Amino acid sequence: MKPASNDEAKFRSIHAMFNPASIAIVGATEKPGYGGRFLPNLVNTGSSARLYPVNPNRDQIFGVRSYPSVVDLPEAVDLACIVVSSEQVLPAFRQCIERGVKSALIISAGFAELATDQGRARQAELRQLARDSGIRVCGPNCLGLANVAGKSWTTPSTRIGPDMLAFNPTIGLVSQSGATAYRPLLCTAEDKRIGFRYMVATGNEADLESSDFIQYMLRDPEISAVAAVVEGFKDGEKFVETADMAREAGKPLVLLKIGRTEAGARGASSHTASMTGSDDVQDALFRQKGVIRVDDYDELLETAAMFRMKIRPRGKRMGVISESGGMGSFMADKCAEEGLDVPVLSDGVRGQLLEIMGDRGSAANPADLTGFGTGPDFPRVLDILLSDGEQDLVLMSSVGGAMQADTIIEASKQARKPILFTWTGSTQDARDLDALRRLQASDVPLFYLPAKAAKAARRLIAYHRTRELSIAEAGATRPAARRDLETVRAALAEAETGLDEYQSKQVLAAYGITGVAEQFCKNREDAAKAAEAIGYPVVLKIVSADISHKTEAGGVRLGIKDAEGLEQAYDAIMASAKSYAPKAIIPGVLVQRMRSGGIELIVGTSQDPQFGPVIMLGLGGILAEALKAATWRLCPVNRREAEEMIDEVRALPALLAGFRGSQKFDRKALAEALVAVSELASDARDAIESLDINPLAVFGEGQGTTALDALVVCRPRQTLHEKRKAD
Amino acid sequence: MKPASNDEAKFRSIHAMFNPASIAIVGATEKPGYGGRFLPNLVNTGSSARLYPVNPNRDQIFGVRSYPSVVDLPEAVDLACIVVSSEQVLPAFRQCIERGVKSALIISAGFAELATDQGRARQAELRQLARDSGIRVCGPNCLGLANVAGKSWTTPSTRIGPDMLAFNPTIGLVSQSGATAYRPLLCTAEDKRIGFRYMVATGNEADLESSDFIQYMLRDPEISAVAAVVEGFKDGEKFVETADMAREAGKPLVLLKIGRTEAGARGASSHTASMTGSDDVQDALFRQKGVIRVDDYDELLETAAMFRMKIRPRGKRMGVISESGGMGSFMADKCAEEGLDVPVLSDGVRGQLLEIMGDRGSAANPADLTGFGTGPDFPRVLDILLSDGEQDLVLMSSVGGAMQADTIIEASKQARKPILFTWTGSTQDARDLDALRRLQASDVPLFYLPAKAAKAARRLIAYHRTRELSIAEAGATRPAARRDLETVRAALAEAETGLDEYQSKQVLAAYGITGVAEQFCKNREDAAKAAEAIGYPVVLKIVSADISHKTEAGGVRLGIKDAEGLEQAYDAIMASAKSYAPKAIIPGVLVQRMRSGGIELIVGTSQDPQFGPVIMLGLGGILAEALKAATWRLCPVNRREAEEMIDEVRALPALLAGFRGSQKFDRKALAEALVAVSELASDARDAIESLDINPLAVFGEGQGTTALDALVVCRPRQTLHEKRKAD
Repeated sequence: MKPASNDEAKFRSIHAMFNPASIAIVGATEKPGYGGRFLPNLVNTGSSARLYPVNPNRDQIFGVRSYPSVVDLPEAVDLACIVVSSEQVLPAFRQCIERGVKSALIISAGFAELATDQGRARQAELRQLARDSGIRVCGPNCLGLANVAGKSWTTPSTRIGPDMLAFNPTIGLVSQSGATAYRPLLCTAEDKRIGFRYMVATGNEADLESSDFIQYMLRDPEISAVAAVVEGFKDGEKFVETADMAREAGKPLVLLKIGRTEAGARGASSHTASMTGSDDVQDALFRQKGVIRVDDYDELLETAAMFRMKIRPRGKRMGVISESGGMGSFMADKCAEEGLDVPVLSDGVRGQLLEIMGDRGSAANPADLTGFGTGPDFPRVLDILLSDGEQDLVLMSSVGGAMQADTIIEASKQARKPILFTWTGSTQDARDLDALRRLQASDVPLFYLPAKAAKAARRLIAYHRTRELSIAEAGATRPAARRDLETVRAALAEAETGLDEYQSKQVLAAYGITGVAEQFCKNREDAAKAAEAIGYPVVLKIVSADISHKTEAGGVRLGIKDAEGLEQAYDAIMASAKSYAPKAIIPGVLVQRMRSGGIELIVGTSQDPQFGPVIMLGLGGILAEALKAATWRLCPVNRREAEEMIDEVRALPALLAGFRGSQKFDRKALAEALVAVSELASDARDAIESLDINPLAVFGEGQGTTALDALVVCRPRQTLHEKRKAD
Repeated sequence: MKPASNDEAKFRSIHAMFNPASIAIVGATEKPGYGGRFLPNLVNTGSSARLYPVNPNRDQIFGVRSYPSVVDLPEAVDLACIVVSSEQVLPAFRQCIERGVKSALIISAGFAELATDQGRARQAELRQLARDSGIRVCGPNCLGLANVAGKSWTTPSTRIGPDMLAFNPTIGLVSQSGATAYRPLLCTAEDKRIGFRYMVATGNEADLESSDFIQYMLRDPEISAVAAVVEGFKDGEKFVETADMAREAGKPLVLLKIGRTEAGARGASSHTASMTGSDDVQDALFRQKGVIRVDDYDELLETAAMFRMKIRPRGKRMGVISESGGMGSFMADKCAEEGLDVPVLSDGVRGQLLEIMGDRGSAANPADLTGFGTGPDFPRVLDILLSDGEQDLVLMSSVGGAMQADTIIEASKQARKPILFTWTGSTQDARDLDALRRLQASDVPLFYLPAKAAKAARRLIAYHRTRELSIAEAGATRPAARRDLETVRAALAEAETGLDEYQSKQVLAAYGITGVAEQFCKNREDAAKAAEAIGYPVVLKIVSADISHKTEAGGVRLGIKDAEGLEQAYDAIMASAKSYAPKAIIPGVLVQRMRSGGIELIVGTSQDPQFGPVIMLGLGGILAEALKAATWRLCPVNRREAEEMIDEVRALPALLAGFRGSQKFDRKALAEALVAVSELASDARDAIESLDINPLAVFGEGQGTTALDALVVCRPRQTLHEKRKAD
């Protein structure tokens, strides 16, 4: 983590970008294009900043006095916007440094996105200049930024949104893709009357990156949520810090992650030269950190806007209200598809409702109000429905007039549970607009499609649950597992590339993760004695740091029943391993007690290039591998997160609970093992590259878990991760 | 299938409903409400029909002469619209019959949807009157119908859409839910300029049902697709016939199925009293029949509208075009999430593009055109991109001006591959509307969200593939499997409730589905001889039609190695079975060859209450059951459909192909077994209630499949299905 003083300087730079009292536009022209739109955008949106076009060939630009260069400016401006050709950018930025400007916005392309050596070198130099000078940079290859409340639209975009000021602007938008921010997102937000407070397109992120801007926005008390469009994280750990800050502040980070598939990443890398990580890992990480990942443009905005409403749901029991049986059923379908409950209406509530509605409509859940949804009884009907103690959220779909809208808005302010609304009318027909505009201006979360509303409800519930648990756990200490890091370090210090099975298990044991009874033996005679001591049947495995795939090398024999079998097996695996890898050093063999009857799982850790150590849990065996049933978390995980991992692996909860009358398995011990492995990987993150327990066997309740095989690979001296950081 | 003459009479009735030259409104008033809106809706939309309000208390309604009753009308009208209280409906309908009206529309509620005996009886009587008189009925409890081109809006809805006439109306809309049709669907269609040619809300479907109206609309040459909202199918077989007709006509049936979850069905049953079937089965059936099932209101309309474009894709290789790297990547992500390919751009195409674009944008797939998407080079750039022979569809996302829109519309007319377009601009901002309206008026399939466009592309590809295969297969004969129905009938004729394992396998064998070598034996001595002949190891099982769960009854022993073991096993299973079911008749035992090493699957058939015999394929074993990996088809299936079933079962294709170096398994034999089982279930649909092969073992390539256990349950004399039909 950076020292706080650096952070404060960074935030001052960003503050200057969003609230400039003076702005230079380097490369301003009157021609159409980026250079020609900057000044008109500022003027037309009512900027109060002092504006200085910089263009050596003109005295005036659109009637404003122009200066030959930045060094000639009458003041050290808060923000220098650079819109010159790529080869002129660095000279212009050096002049900005010379003149002492506070911050810089670089629109020009021609940097790392070209994927040429020249482009990358230019970007590296820009980054170094920004860091050395402390004059922080947004861009290059970006579309600029806006402070809606401050009436500062420093962007060359053809589309801008000053009208948003009227839309209760409480959302911060950070997008690496400028076109995404200034086209579909801005248009959708305006059409739906969703107000951004800040907008920034960060482009190549040579210096400041998405996380920096998100952190800045989180500090603004008027911001209720930040929506982000990210193709790749420059600094994964900083993003995790940012997610922690957002969660603690109760201002959700809603994320549209681009480049999640190979085809998408192909586009992404040619665009902002970002690195896209494993999507499965990132998905799990977002869930773990309370980051709300969405699937499309509309969801990004509607989900972010939902958090203007501050009340949180206590559970996932949905009350569904509409004025039609068909629409109510459909909403209920959508809720159920999202894993939400739609409980039967409480008897008392049903009784009260029947008194008013008689046999018209349906006093049930879903409730079909027919004409009562727009009639004079609606406030009372809604009041009765909201009183149901068996519902945690209410989702209504309708299109009524102003009275209906106002009733819902008022009820939403009083209610002790969230009310979400799906607008099923026109968004353009004049007859509908009065009611629609009232709802849009309110804090009632508003949606336009049943499936999107149900999805948002699921996300609302999950977000608050993650947040509340993380607050509750903040003060709690870690489970007192054994954590003997010194033993681990000693074992790893001696190794070059990795540890053999025996050594790997010693490392695991230092964190309390037990293997089977086993003994390392240097020769056949010792092995026979060991087997006698452990008790037949046993397993015999070669031990060699040079052979990581023992089974492939013919180096494993299971179910050895007696001394004769042991001797035969010893000779066979030695011969086989030597022919498989003639140069391998084989210090000896491992004699293990043969254990069976457990559920076999894979537990492993690896270093994510962006986020550091990550733990995986998956089903073992052929079928499981074909099914790709696995889940991930950032290390370390606590007990509750370990339990969540178990719940996320397809079929695993059912297997552990004793499917079809089989015995129950030791779920508690599995969770403890996950916590211990994650702590080991986290504590030794500088030394362990990856760790595999394959299989980890989970035995019957109270019988614990056992690492039947294990493999620790050491971290190389200079890792990819460190290289990226130094880049 | 009904005789054609009946169908023609039915279609004449429906034609009269949609094209009435004369209309009676029974229950017309001037008060607000259903009775008061009918006449104004007709007049305001320019109906040319002769209009006859019927109300005994008034001489005139809105200035139009009113009649005391239907029998007093001066002519036998084409359509009688009944809007009276529920108890007056049957008397009014009887008068309609008396007066010889051609068809009736019953808006009034108070029938089966009340879920009372009275309501159900009233509906049954209405149905009988309609069937006996031949005066066909739409409703009751419905919201009426409209013929947009015929300017006939016979509906009491507060919202109607005569403006649709200008929107190229080629879609038929059939919805059981009136509020869904006349609110979200009508509003969305109007907002997006999608034109319905017909609209009908069918309500309770006492007489005419959704399938009837769909069939009628399919006959109109101007109809390009039918969109349907269905809560339950009155007659599943008729729906399947309708789906076949739609597929043959090349006019897709796009379906929003409501009540797919338990919570949704709770709403549905209180609404239209429809029966909702197993969602998984229906999903598979829709896929099989080329019915396009969608997930939300917008998808229903946009997907139906897509089929105004007639060109079909040859494969699933997508070309993605945008003016932004971020947006292109995102579209590519969405395509990949839908299982579509986004291949690398062909070298030649890339070269031509680079000549124009240089280092601006990205000459790749996804293509980032930057300013070339709206500049003068756009027609040429688009032409080059469309020439890529490695792409089957093109998906462009943009918001340009009229020139861009016209270029795309023109290219779409010439192109030999479909071009889909995602509008990323505003739908309300005046600056964008010119281009948007041009696109909306064209046949270019138009979407507003990347995820929806990609989903539609996937559906377009799947639809045409299913359709083409079904056309190609129409003339092909069934595989010449053994089909000895007489043996099957003889076996079933003797049985009361079901067959024992031995008998069940005889039935299977009559259709060429083989079991292991086995022998039925009446006593211990015979069993020992049989085992000797078959060869140890063997399996021993009790045979009893009274014990269907043999394993639970202790009636199965595997891996018997010798004569001594066989005798012990015989005594043990007999004792065990007798104590489990003291009254069971146990005619003997089965001695089977012990076979192992195959992949064990479950193959079964059952009678879907709406659609008849359905075949299921699933993974066997504990893990598979926990994973719910299974798929379904309507019986019979052909070879290609059987192959599709195999591909749909999670992990099965990988297992059969020899996962991680194991042997390959006999996929061909599995497909053949599925075909045979489906033909058996189809041929003997009147006699077999269900059939289970659990497990069916699939052995190595060329080694075939074996039914290791089987159970046939007979159909009761009067089945649920027949009861419903008679209802």
